[in-house]
Amino acid sequence: MPMILKFETLTREAFAPFGDVVEAVDSVHHFTINAGNTERYHDLAHLAVDDKGHLIASILRGQPRELPFTIQEMERHPKASQLFMPLSGRAYLVVVAARDAQPAVKDLQAFLCSSNQGVNYAPGVWHHPLLALDKASDFLVVDRAGPGENCDVVQLSEAAIIPVLD
Amino acid sequence: MPMILKFETLTREAFAPFGDVVEAVDSVHHFTINAGNTERYHDLAHLAVDDKGHLIASILRGQPRELPFTIQEMERHPKASQLFMPLSGRAYLVVVAARDAQPAVKDLQAFLCSSNQGVNYAPGVWHHPLLALDKASDFLVVDRAGPGENCDVVQLSEAAIIPVLD
Repeated sequence: MPMILKFETLTREAFAPFGDVVEAVDSVHHFTINAGNTERYHDLAHLAVDDKGHLIASILRGQPRELPFTIQEMERHPKASQLFMPLSGRAYLVVVAARDAQPAVKDLQAFLCSSNQGVNYAPGVWHHPLLALDKASDFLVVDRAGPGENCDVVQLSEAAIIPVLD
Repeated sequence: MPMILKFETLTREAFAPFGDVVEAVDSVHHFTINAGNTERYHDLAHLAVDDKGHLIASILRGQPRELPFTIQEMERHPKASQLFMPLSGRAYLVVVAARDAQPAVKDLQAFLCSSNQGVNYAPGVWHHPLLALDKASDFLVVDRAGPGENCDVVQLSEAAIIPVLD
């Protein structure tokens, strides 16, 4: 029997083992600039890159996943962090597993992310590729360019299912 | 008589002297990833930072400017680029001037940016602080943290006016 994933609401605390939540909320460090016009929610992600690479900005346009959806593989980027910020005003899903071992289905953790929340995967954190919902959705992505392989992919020995969401 | 600014549509070509336009359009380098699910519009901005600083990601929430609005000062960041990506689905304005001299009103160039277009100011490019329209608007910003002063501000000797837009 494949495991049915349970999704939890994305919070900074719950996601801390995997990286950062990028959102403008009162609980993060913020201050006023531009003569009172603008509130700056400051330095929300640990952007990391190895010495040989550099950070780049791209836009990823993901087609919506059809639910139920089967999770069969996970990937990780050992040389840099990877930030996804939603641009299309739609919720999306994140499925991650802790950094250390080969991930198994029991290690997966699943988050429902609101349209105002970005995520920044720390280097080496296993995650499923983009899981957009409902319609094609754009994300600003900050990740790495540079020499060397920076994407490990692993097949899960058992599948996990993203159910139709309530 | 203050000068009334004329706004042009933001294009990569027109903005090239000032930095990059960050948008997912056919004319930029793009390719398919994630087993066909995702189109990646790749490396859309020249993110630049001096050796002593590093890039950070923040969210800036700008209150809408009331039009007509008077432009009286400009700023620049000599040590790094600064990327603004709109998150709230609203158009916004950009006013820039070429890098070299102290900007004068005659040097200003004004762009109307769509909700799908980000801008990345090259290091040292004079620009006006955030010019949101209509409602409070969030932007993902990638700029610099690190030692040393990284914001020059100059008062314009004459004012320029952003008129009520058609």
